[in-house]
Amino acid sequence: MFRIKKTQGRARSGELSLQRGVIQTPCFMPIATKGAVKSLDVSDLKHLGAQMILSNTYHLLLRPGQEAMQRHGGMPSLMGWDGPMLTDSGGYQVFSLSKMNKTTDEGVTFASHINGRKIHLSPESSIAMQQAIGADVMMQFDDVAAGQAPRARVEEAMQRSLSWAQRCLIARTSNQKLFGIVQGGVYEDLRTTSANALTQMDFDGFAIGGLSVGEKREDTYRMSELVADLLPATKPRYFMGGGMPEEIVFYVNAGVDMFDCVLPTRNARHGTLFVWTGQPEHINWSMNPTDFYERLRVGNEMYQFDDSVIDAHCGCHTCKTVSRAYLRHLFATGELLAFRLASIHNLAFYMRLMSSLRAYIGSQSI
Amino acid sequence: MFRIKKTQGRARSGELSLQRGVIQTPCFMPIATKGAVKSLDVSDLKHLGAQMILSNTYHLLLRPGQEAMQRHGGMPSLMGWDGPMLTDSGGYQVFSLSKMNKTTDEGVTFASHINGRKIHLSPESSIAMQQAIGADVMMQFDDVAAGQAPRARVEEAMQRSLSWAQRCLIARTSNQKLFGIVQGGVYEDLRTTSANALTQMDFDGFAIGGLSVGEKREDTYRMSELVADLLPATKPRYFMGGGMPEEIVFYVNAGVDMFDCVLPTRNARHGTLFVWTGQPEHINWSMNPTDFYERLRVGNEMYQFDDSVIDAHCGCHTCKTVSRAYLRHLFATGELLAFRLASIHNLAFYMRLMSSLRAYIGSQSI
Repeated sequence: MFRIKKTQGRARSGELSLQRGVIQTPCFMPIATKGAVKSLDVSDLKHLGAQMILSNTYHLLLRPGQEAMQRHGGMPSLMGWDGPMLTDSGGYQVFSLSKMNKTTDEGVTFASHINGRKIHLSPESSIAMQQAIGADVMMQFDDVAAGQAPRARVEEAMQRSLSWAQRCLIARTSNQKLFGIVQGGVYEDLRTTSANALTQMDFDGFAIGGLSVGEKREDTYRMSELVADLLPATKPRYFMGGGMPEEIVFYVNAGVDMFDCVLPTRNARHGTLFVWTGQPEHINWSMNPTDFYERLRVGNEMYQFDDSVIDAHCGCHTCKTVSRAYLRHLFATGELLAFRLASIHNLAFYMRLMSSLRAYIGSQSI
Repeated sequence: MFRIKKTQGRARSGELSLQRGVIQTPCFMPIATKGAVKSLDVSDLKHLGAQMILSNTYHLLLRPGQEAMQRHGGMPSLMGWDGPMLTDSGGYQVFSLSKMNKTTDEGVTFASHINGRKIHLSPESSIAMQQAIGADVMMQFDDVAAGQAPRARVEEAMQRSLSWAQRCLIARTSNQKLFGIVQGGVYEDLRTTSANALTQMDFDGFAIGGLSVGEKREDTYRMSELVADLLPATKPRYFMGGGMPEEIVFYVNAGVDMFDCVLPTRNARHGTLFVWTGQPEHINWSMNPTDFYERLRVGNEMYQFDDSVIDAHCGCHTCKTVSRAYLRHLFATGELLAFRLASIHNLAFYMRLMSSLRAYIGSQSI
C-alpha cells in the first residue's frame, strides 16, 4: 500500500496506493468540506494537479446526512471525483464548531451548528458515516483537547482516543483504509504513550493530531518531530490541519507524508495570496527555509494600477490570465470571481510546494 | 459595419464588424456589470461562445472610476477580454438604483448607492466615461421614465432623450460606435416621434429602450414591433434588458439583432435553470413558441436523489460534469460553486438559443 521511493535525512518521498488511485507523497489534500473545494469544481482540481482531497464527516453528517450518502453511493460518486479521498472522523469539528457538546467514554453528544439539533457521534457511528461517504482513507474518531487545556484533560483525551481507536478498528466493515491519530498535546510522555500504543494496533497509517490548535509553534515543531520518529517507517504519516508553507516544509523534513489545511483557500477568500520569492526548484529545502514566499494582500490599494502577474514564478490559470490590478478590482467590488481566482492560485502554490519537495527528496547527496 | 446575411420574415441574421472582432447576429451579450460576469472568468466566456459582453457605466463610474479606467486603458484591457464590448450609458441605473436623483435638461445628479456620494452624469460626462471604458459600442445617455409614469413624464423623458442624443453625438471624440435609444413608453405616437427623430441623426445603430420596466408584456411586444419597423433596415437593432427566452424569440422575429439581460445569471444564482424540452435545432421558431423550455428549480428537494444531467439537450461544462443531485447539494449547503455551475448552464442555454435562431433565419422558405 505504501512504498518509500527516496529519502533525504528524515524526509521521504513515496507512493501511496489507494482504491481510487496512486498518489505521490509528500502530498497536500485540498479541503472539500461539504463535497466541494470552495468555488472550485472537479475539473479545476484536476487542472491543479490535486491528487487526493479531504471531506469532513461532521459537515456531511449534518447535510446531506448518512442515508443520503448511502443512496448516492458516497461523496466521490455524488461530486464526480474519481481520485482518492480522505475523511476526517468528525472529532475535531465537534471540538471546534459545536459549543454545546458532552463527551463521555461512549461518545460525544453535540448540537448542530446549523440548527441546534442534538447529534451523537461515537467511534462506531463515525466509522459508519465514513463508510457511507466512501473515502479511500478514514480517520479514527478521537477526543481532541484544546491547546490550552490542563494536562489532566489532555491525558484523558489521549487515553480515550486510544480506546476509541480500538473500537474504530472493530467497527470497520469495509475495505477502506483506516488511520490512527496520535494525541497528547504538547507533553512528550503523553505523545510517546499514545504513539507506542497506537502503533501496536493494525492501522494502515498514522496521523499527528491535536496540533496547530493554539499552542506555540516551537511546541508544534517539537511534538511533530518526536511523534514522526516514533511511528513505523513503513506506514504513511499524516499531519492533520497544518499549516503555513514553511511549516509543511518542516514537517516533510521531519518525515511526514500527508497534509491538509484550510489556509490556502481561506487566505484566498480574504485576498491574501502566497507568492514565490524565487524559483521553487532552486530552493534548498533541507535548511527549513522560511523566506521562500511572501504574502501579497491583493486587495491593497497599492495594487490598483499594478498590471503585473500575481506571481512571476507561477503558471496557474489565474497567473496566466489576470493581473494584480484586475484581481484587486474584483476584491474591491466584491465579485465572487475573486474568490475563485485567488483559490486557484493559492492551491497551485501549495501543489507546486509539494512537487518541489518531492523532487528535492533523494536528489541531493546526504 | 453591419451586413445582413439572411432574412426570415422580419427576422434577420447578420454580421456586425467592430473594433475587437466580428459578431454574428442575432446575439446575446452576457452582462459583466463591474468588469466580470458574476462568478465567471474570461476563459469561461470564451468556452461558452460569448461573442460580445456588456459592462455598466454607472457601476464602473463608482468603482474604479473614470481616471482608473483611463490609466488601465479601458475595461477590456483590465479584464483581459479581447472580444467586442458594449457599455450602457448609466441612464437606466440612475433610474433603477439611485433613490435620490434630480434630473434637469442639463443632466442627472444622484447619490451613489454604495456610499451616498453625489455624482453628476450628463450626455457629455457619460460619453467621456464610456470612452474611458473603451467599449466598441457606446449608448447615448437617456432619461428613462418608469413603466407606470404618467404620459406627460414619459413624453418629457423621450424629448429630453432626443436632445441628449444630439449632445452625445457631438461629445464623442473617439472612433467608438454610438447607438441612439428610442424612448416613449407604451405610447405609439411617442415611440414614433422618438424613432423618426433619432433615425435622422448619425447613429451607428439603434436601441429600443424603456421597455421591460414593469409594463404588460403585450405592450412590450407591441412597442418592440412598432419600433423595429420604424428603424432603418441597414443598421443593427438592440433591445435593451430583455428578456425571457420566449421574449427574445419574439423580438428576433420582429427584426431585433442584439440583446442583453440579467435573467440567465440572476436566475442561476437563485437556483433556477433553463432546460430545453426538446432539441433546439428542431424547433420552429417562426411560430413564436413558448413551450420550448422549462424552469428547473434545482434547489428543490425532489432533485435530492436525481442523478440525471441538468439538461439532456445541453453539452455545457455543467451538464457534462455534474448531476442535478450534486448541484442541489451545492445550493442546499450554500457552496459558491453552485452559482458558477448554474450560471455556466443558463448562459449556455441563451447562447444555444441564439445560435439556433441564427441557423433558423433564412433556412426555411418564406
